[in-house]
Amino acid sequence: MKTQSYRAIRDAIASHDLTPAEAIRSSHDAIAMADGHIHAFTALADEAMLERDAAATGPLAGIAIGMKDIIDTAELPTSYGSEIYNGHRPAADASICAMARSTGAHIAGKTVTAEFAFFHPGPTVNPHDHAHTPGGSSSGSAAAVAAGMVPLAIGTQTGGSVIRPASFCGVAGYKPSFRLIPTVGVKTFSWTLDTLGLFAVSIEDVAAAATDLTGRPLDRPRSNEPLRIGIWDDGNRREVSDDMVAAVESIARIAERDGHTVITVRETEPMVAADLCHALLQEYEGALSLAHELRSAPDRLSEKLRSALEAASEIEPSEYDSARRTARRARLAARDLFGEVDLVLSPAATGAAPAGLASTGSAEHNRLWTLLGCPAATFRANGADSLPLGVQLTARFGEDAMLLAVASRLETALHDQ
Amino acid sequence: MKTQSYRAIRDAIASHDLTPAEAIRSSHDAIAMADGHIHAFTALADEAMLERDAAATGPLAGIAIGMKDIIDTAELPTSYGSEIYNGHRPAADASICAMARSTGAHIAGKTVTAEFAFFHPGPTVNPHDHAHTPGGSSSGSAAAVAAGMVPLAIGTQTGGSVIRPASFCGVAGYKPSFRLIPTVGVKTFSWTLDTLGLFAVSIEDVAAAATDLTGRPLDRPRSNEPLRIGIWDDGNRREVSDDMVAAVESIARIAERDGHTVITVRETEPMVAADLCHALLQEYEGALSLAHELRSAPDRLSEKLRSALEAASEIEPSEYDSARRTARRARLAARDLFGEVDLVLSPAATGAAPAGLASTGSAEHNRLWTLLGCPAATFRANGADSLPLGVQLTARFGEDAMLLAVASRLETALHDQ
Repeated sequence: MKTQSYRAIRDAIASHDLTPAEAIRSSHDAIAMADGHIHAFTALADEAMLERDAAATGPLAGIAIGMKDIIDTAELPTSYGSEIYNGHRPAADASICAMARSTGAHIAGKTVTAEFAFFHPGPTVNPHDHAHTPGGSSSGSAAAVAAGMVPLAIGTQTGGSVIRPASFCGVAGYKPSFRLIPTVGVKTFSWTLDTLGLFAVSIEDVAAAATDLTGRPLDRPRSNEPLRIGIWDDGNRREVSDDMVAAVESIARIAERDGHTVITVRETEPMVAADLCHALLQEYEGALSLAHELRSAPDRLSEKLRSALEAASEIEPSEYDSARRTARRARLAARDLFGEVDLVLSPAATGAAPAGLASTGSAEHNRLWTLLGCPAATFRANGADSLPLGVQLTARFGEDAMLLAVASRLETALHDQ
Repeated sequence: MKTQSYRAIRDAIASHDLTPAEAIRSSHDAIAMADGHIHAFTALADEAMLERDAAATGPLAGIAIGMKDIIDTAELPTSYGSEIYNGHRPAADASICAMARSTGAHIAGKTVTAEFAFFHPGPTVNPHDHAHTPGGSSSGSAAAVAAGMVPLAIGTQTGGSVIRPASFCGVAGYKPSFRLIPTVGVKTFSWTLDTLGLFAVSIEDVAAAATDLTGRPLDRPRSNEPLRIGIWDDGNRREVSDDMVAAVESIARIAERDGHTVITVRETEPMVAADLCHALLQEYEGALSLAHELRSAPDRLSEKLRSALEAASEIEPSEYDSARRTARRARLAARDLFGEVDLVLSPAATGAAPAGLASTGSAEHNRLWTLLGCPAATFRANGADSLPLGVQLTARFGEDAMLLAVASRLETALHDQ
């Protein structure tokens, strides 16, 4: 598949080899070609929006963005992946949309999300094999970038909803430190977990887009100062395929060749405890966030979501408060972990995208890092002859720039092999 | 003014001396009598909602709540105090509304908020003197309880928007620890500061309501174990009236008589620095939260809000990140403070409600505690012969139950004098 590179488009526009109007039109042409098969979009910008945005200025002028349909847009329907909100038009854009517009971007359309960004899937297929899931819940955002329809897409992660679909679709995914990008106007599932993230074809692209969008220096190349990279040893608690184990090992070898020290770091008890609390935190908060929907339209929720929310409505506040303390203890333990190593290397998912569209796969490799608020990034780490899979790098809260710089070097070194 | 006590109504219903239908009707009768003068409400429940809620069950059955109009309600217009949202009907109830409904409460109506819960006032007057401000931004919530229209009202505090209007209106106000009550469905100004809070006629009432609403034990009487209470010494950085100084001293004397140790605690440098960062944090986040409104309808914002948001749009992310670190440092310093004392006693406002309705008064005595995420409570601490004013008690994050128990004892002791 011919993909669209964020930097290539941005730089071509800067050097006047391309106009924003041409770039936007080209993305829409690609959507028109591919989306009948991929089903990544739920709504598209109309001709008037294209023309208006073709005249926009700013670092993202000419960039067509796929915006996950869990994110409010005032001029495009926003249905949160739920039939309850069919045709819903929010009163205001989410902050991320306002940030995109104010930096000149064009919101090309809304991308498919699992129902309320939980697990019940939408119609999107994996561009690499239409019989396989693209992952979720940011299914459409990952697939839209992978299928070459847009150079940039926005998703959210509460468990593993950015890193996992990026891995399954063979693109770069970046989940920033918690609250680096405001979630105002994003339909809340869990206020302590919901995190906005970005998809692009490479880490360099995702870092450039994050820089241009947020005004923070997240794309600075880094002197090749040797770092300590820890391979995550979870005592085989999590499912992982042989090819994923091989991918992690291959990236570790590249890191060593690049001069970094690679050691093994054991998952400690506070981390295990927090990992096991994730579902309780997510679902307790989900039951409060979606209390209106559960009360007023239970029959219009998927069975899986309804039963999860109903069960979570029975959780005692004291259990939830105890889980919050467990999470807090793990955040303190993360300081020790990221004193020992600069980055943690682990699988981005259990393996390549599973066959079938009924499940979006497991978030077990991602949810701990979401709970810790640590930045995470993934890039493709296997060959083009099989379904893609990615490795996951994570770093200390706030070390987003370092994480992206190292991930970018490793990704480049892998491709140069 | 004859006020409505939350506990009195709840207990009368429990003992079958009153039906929920009678209680709800009685609140609406009081609204019909008073609100033509007070202007606390922007919208009221209709007859069908009254009848439906009269049949509700749960600990709050029969309780009519004034819900600040910054909080989404699916069946009542929600305009956030802004003409931009005249007649706006959100798609879903906020979590706090769903919590109220699921515990049997009746949402009597929406109460006046300053524009987007910032400073531009609505029409509400102070029930104790109509020529004076009720405070803000939760103007209508405080006034509705003070004027005896409802036994319970919900507000929000980003700077001092619960504690200050409670003090000005002579009622009890409680701002819980940050995120004790979910803010899902509350129009965001600042995601690190916005906090839901409660108004009732006494601390015992507010604590009982908080317990029944959240399912957490926040109303347990406390053995009279001696505590350390710190009188806040801010080096006269904040404006304060003589009668407020006298009120704080009178409560300190009562605390001593009750067996507590009262000492003076100095505001330390990290606290001062954080206090001075509050406006930057609030307004930087406000400019992102309200970016859509600032972009699409700047002429429909008040001059004060528009100019604040426009200025904040120019703040560099690095300045904001630096302010966040300053806030974090103060939260660490708060652990030391609340190691030295159990509670801090300070003015709830600069003094009694100022004359005039153009300003809702200053949040300078409240904003630091909001930023720290500490629970805060206020109760009336002067005689009935003058405009009311309250003292403010604050405690360590999570120590809400202790705070309310001690505040309740002090309030009762004051009234028994």
